[in-house]
Amino acid sequence: MDIYAVIMAGGVGSRFWPRSKEKKPKQLIRIFGENTMIQDTVFRLDGIIKKENILIITNNLQKARVIEQLPQIPEENIIAEPFGKNTAACIGLSLAIIRNKSKDAVVVTLPSDHLIINVKEFQNTIKTAVEFSYSSKGLVTIGINPTHPETGYGYIQVIDGKVEDNVYKVSTFAEKPILETAKRFIDSGDFFWNSGMFIWHLDAILKEIYKYMPELYQGIEEMSKLKAVNFEKSLTNIYGKLRNISIDYGIMEKSDNVFLTKGSFDWSDVGSWEAVYQLSEKDDDRNVKVGDVYFRDTSGSYIFTPKKFTAVLGVDNLIVIDTKDALLICSREKAQDVKHVVEYLKMHKRNEHL
Amino acid sequence: MDIYAVIMAGGVGSRFWPRSKEKKPKQLIRIFGENTMIQDTVFRLDGIIKKENILIITNNLQKARVIEQLPQIPEENIIAEPFGKNTAACIGLSLAIIRNKSKDAVVVTLPSDHLIINVKEFQNTIKTAVEFSYSSKGLVTIGINPTHPETGYGYIQVIDGKVEDNVYKVSTFAEKPILETAKRFIDSGDFFWNSGMFIWHLDAILKEIYKYMPELYQGIEEMSKLKAVNFEKSLTNIYGKLRNISIDYGIMEKSDNVFLTKGSFDWSDVGSWEAVYQLSEKDDDRNVKVGDVYFRDTSGSYIFTPKKFTAVLGVDNLIVIDTKDALLICSREKAQDVKHVVEYLKMHKRNEHL
Repeated sequence: MDIYAVIMAGGVGSRFWPRSKEKKPKQLIRIFGENTMIQDTVFRLDGIIKKENILIITNNLQKARVIEQLPQIPEENIIAEPFGKNTAACIGLSLAIIRNKSKDAVVVTLPSDHLIINVKEFQNTIKTAVEFSYSSKGLVTIGINPTHPETGYGYIQVIDGKVEDNVYKVSTFAEKPILETAKRFIDSGDFFWNSGMFIWHLDAILKEIYKYMPELYQGIEEMSKLKAVNFEKSLTNIYGKLRNISIDYGIMEKSDNVFLTKGSFDWSDVGSWEAVYQLSEKDDDRNVKVGDVYFRDTSGSYIFTPKKFTAVLGVDNLIVIDTKDALLICSREKAQDVKHVVEYLKMHKRNEHL
Repeated sequence: MDIYAVIMAGGVGSRFWPRSKEKKPKQLIRIFGENTMIQDTVFRLDGIIKKENILIITNNLQKARVIEQLPQIPEENIIAEPFGKNTAACIGLSLAIIRNKSKDAVVVTLPSDHLIINVKEFQNTIKTAVEFSYSSKGLVTIGINPTHPETGYGYIQVIDGKVEDNVYKVSTFAEKPILETAKRFIDSGDFFWNSGMFIWHLDAILKEIYKYMPELYQGIEEMSKLKAVNFEKSLTNIYGKLRNISIDYGIMEKSDNVFLTKGSFDWSDVGSWEAVYQLSEKDDDRNVKVGDVYFRDTSGSYIFTPKKFTAVLGVDNLIVIDTKDALLICSREKAQDVKHVVEYLKMHKRNEHL
């Protein structure tokens, strides 16, 4: 068995404006600690997957920075999609490449921009999933025990489906629910957060793609035959024909060969500045600061102003993000609306801030 | 009769941090429109007082900028106090200088950092006060009709004291009142805001100083004899002996030769960012912006970020002031507390931000 990792790193992360930009989205910035999100994602695989078996799928805008941030990954393993076509196409591309390297590969497919606290637990979960996917040829997802009725995540249901230690047969996938539904999910005890991590044997996933997304299978066949020279350029034609859908929607929700391993680690997809606030260490007034900040009569606020002395007075539940060219002032409850700023900037062709 | 103006420009304006600095306080910054406050103060005298009769009393930290901002004023008329000693000393200094220029001077003494909207009305009020102070040798103050029970201003009471058209005998001076008292003042109809502007004949004010502040009179005698060469350096010894009190407390509240002319112009001492917000033109959501600002679900806020695109989401009644080296985020109701930021910076010797 050869273990490969595919790190999906094509996201644009408009909810992290103004820190995230098209050329430097969420996965390429330092949100927690010293490393960027993608660096942490790669470091988490230390000891379980060899560097030369890690593929990064990114795009042309971001590729140079990915190479810069991940010097330990062979440059030929960092591949730019010609354009974003959702996770099904991205995974298809990864399979085309891995198929040419190994006939007996287990592929661990991971988002590049999630937060995971306990690396040891993460690695144990991955090991369990790798073993099971190799022995059973089942498609394995990582489910996270929900701590609250989050409406920003998809859910995976498992009913009495225990197959072996920490492996369960999946009953259903559920899209992001409304709050009432999310509460019902939590109460039932059957539902897990869909972490977007997948572990599968090459043969197993190709078989399901052949069955449920034959046009993608055809694309994979074509991509497998591309020469290394001008590989990325040649992708454009093939990619143009692929459907823009998620692997969840295209395969996982349809296949009856899907299993779940519970991730016992703390996990977040860090979907907004509010999530960053929630996940950060707070002072006695529940404030978080990155930079030189003076607080007075202020609580529950996240202040990121590393370049400038900042005084915050008489303010509650505020997010402040200061960058070289732009400043965001946002109430925590409106953190999801930051994407509207990006829309506004696009509409007004203010590319200097995108 | 020779008319002189004395513009008192030694204030430090810590409530306008981070725009105001020790070297560049409120009077030297552009708060409304194209001109700095001191430039507007000088422009308002156009046509009623000759440039060579305008004295600016400032300090050594600010003098270079005052000269730069007021090229029309003869440089020798811009005088630095060795250190701040409140308005009585500042006025004493101005009288010592004017006494050597004219024996028949009426002196119009003005703060450098107040906002006045109607220049024509202002000039008419000054003319009335100048005429009366010349003919009667009374000390004249400008009183402003109070529009609300402001607790940040001193008040002047006038009871049935009409002397001639728009000139009244003053009954009492009242310090900044508590809200209840301020309301009582307003209800009585006898009270006016003390604008801090004074108009007096040289002989009249010197006579009162001789009577109520003999040590200041002595200082004026000494200052009058100083040579032009090294004038400012020689001031240090004399200033060291002067009391640190206001002209209101030292003279005006004691003298029974004080009159009031009603200023019919709109006036504010612009004491805080909240006052700036109140005095600025607002959009439909009662927001004010200086710079390139995108508002969403935001109301009642003052955003000064001229150097940086700024997005403000889901925020009410907030003040944001962005400068090259510092950022202020302050709820409007805490605008008075900005001075505590300056205290904090002083205490921690953060002189780069002062």
